[in-house]
Amino acid sequence: MNCPKHVRINEVGPRDGLQNESAWVDTEDKIEWINMLSKTGLPYIEVTSFVHPRWIPALRDSLDVAKGIARSEHTVYAALVPNLIGLEHAAEGGIDQACVFLSASETHNQKNVNKPIDRTVQELRRVITEAKAEKMATRAYLSTVFGCPYEQNVPIEQVIRLSDTLLEMGVDEISLGDTIGAANPLQVIAVLEALLPRIPAIKIALHFHDTRGTALANIIPALDMGITSFDTSSGGLGGCPYAPGSAGNAATEDVIYMLEQMGIDTGTDMNKLLYAAGWIADKIGKDLPSRNLQAFRTK
Amino acid sequence: MNCPKHVRINEVGPRDGLQNESAWVDTEDKIEWINMLSKTGLPYIEVTSFVHPRWIPALRDSLDVAKGIARSEHTVYAALVPNLIGLEHAAEGGIDQACVFLSASETHNQKNVNKPIDRTVQELRRVITEAKAEKMATRAYLSTVFGCPYEQNVPIEQVIRLSDTLLEMGVDEISLGDTIGAANPLQVIAVLEALLPRIPAIKIALHFHDTRGTALANIIPALDMGITSFDTSSGGLGGCPYAPGSAGNAATEDVIYMLEQMGIDTGTDMNKLLYAAGWIADKIGKDLPSRNLQAFRTK
Repeated sequence: MNCPKHVRINEVGPRDGLQNESAWVDTEDKIEWINMLSKTGLPYIEVTSFVHPRWIPALRDSLDVAKGIARSEHTVYAALVPNLIGLEHAAEGGIDQACVFLSASETHNQKNVNKPIDRTVQELRRVITEAKAEKMATRAYLSTVFGCPYEQNVPIEQVIRLSDTLLEMGVDEISLGDTIGAANPLQVIAVLEALLPRIPAIKIALHFHDTRGTALANIIPALDMGITSFDTSSGGLGGCPYAPGSAGNAATEDVIYMLEQMGIDTGTDMNKLLYAAGWIADKIGKDLPSRNLQAFRTK
Repeated sequence: MNCPKHVRINEVGPRDGLQNESAWVDTEDKIEWINMLSKTGLPYIEVTSFVHPRWIPALRDSLDVAKGIARSEHTVYAALVPNLIGLEHAAEGGIDQACVFLSASETHNQKNVNKPIDRTVQELRRVITEAKAEKMATRAYLSTVFGCPYEQNVPIEQVIRLSDTLLEMGVDEISLGDTIGAANPLQVIAVLEALLPRIPAIKIALHFHDTRGTALANIIPALDMGITSFDTSSGGLGGCPYAPGSAGNAATEDVIYMLEQMGIDTGTDMNKLLYAAGWIADKIGKDLPSRNLQAFRTK
């Protein structure tokens, strides 16, 4: 198989992980955890979400978190921004990269942002334009690419159409999300075969949830097809509040263990990653799904 | 990628899973669980181990289990047999397939069976010869193929030499074990590239533990290279008592979910598999690592 020399791991735990936790994590603890993650060498950390606190109360301290963290020059600090107000707060918080989000299936988009896809696209276009004016990097999440909890199969034509739209808006990266963790390696191949003739591999990230244990397996054909950017979360925290039965993201430690064993550099320190994942597990007060964390703790 | 139409899943939970559990499972419960597994359509179930009860007290009821289970004509019932006494008991219990075991690393073999590899080979030869005389099918486990907890790297030459020896004894199948769950997909490719010119793919099974979350990812290149036989355990039970930090086998439900989603037939019923895994989890009284079981139970 083809293997890249280097892969970029995008840590989404502080956002995608915590947004789904019922336990409140104190602002100073979020900051300490993010600072730990920065010291692991991770090149990208999504630190919070500037959505209205009514929707995601677990991240209602987004501005304090963004302002409170220590910055590493090697890390890009990103945040989710749903609209222009969110973007304003993100800019005030010194966020480097603004992430917008959109579902590939109409029902999930409606449940997620209370708007149809076409109106969401109009809003995102304004956010992306403004983010660029603020000199921020941009990323678009396209959710439910590999399956929708409401509509089941999502037509590849819809994924192509929305990817084209996002690219045409000028986003720097599109993260294709397996929101419900239902993807399989052949589906990854099929989606990438459809998109790679239109979008350069360098602009695509893959965002797998591990609901059915297939997240790492899905990364293998993607690597072979030239994808070098993957979203993961510390300890395997995460899920989607609007996708019943969905589980955590691929665990950062598990993905990095596999890649490093394959001789693929991620620029990170495994001991520090394990420590950070164990630390947040203790703060939340539950076991996290990361296999490497479990092995480390039962040694 | 190349995908086979059909894959054989070898259920090892009642042996490899239970042998590592400190909880005692009553004989009638073992029998009931194996009967449930038979009804899922699994083509192979390793029901127990005929080792001396001093070594694995959890399976000290091996003969009662073997005699007590209901047989499905679609399932091969196998058991681990370390020596001629074990084989005699296995034959008395009506076992269809006798499984012997050997480590690819000297230290692990010594700790596992208290003998050097060369003396173990002599013993296994007698067991295989006798099993064939009894008209039993045979299988040989080669452990620590992808790494040893004591010697770390295991030279591929040693794996080749021992595979050749086992094949020359006439075993029907060799199961290559990632005992400590340290393998990565590139290593799977390397091992298969070394062995496939000498051993037909149909005679090779792969036995991955999921200690670091890589078990399903390791299956992907193996499928692509023509392997169609994989060992898994119900609920992801398992580990190795002589491999510190090792975790459960790849979970039967997770592997089968992935394969079936890829259009690969396994001849099994997922609902029945989930029920059986949940049933044994309750008997043992702990959460099991299977992601599909967790998703099923939190729905």
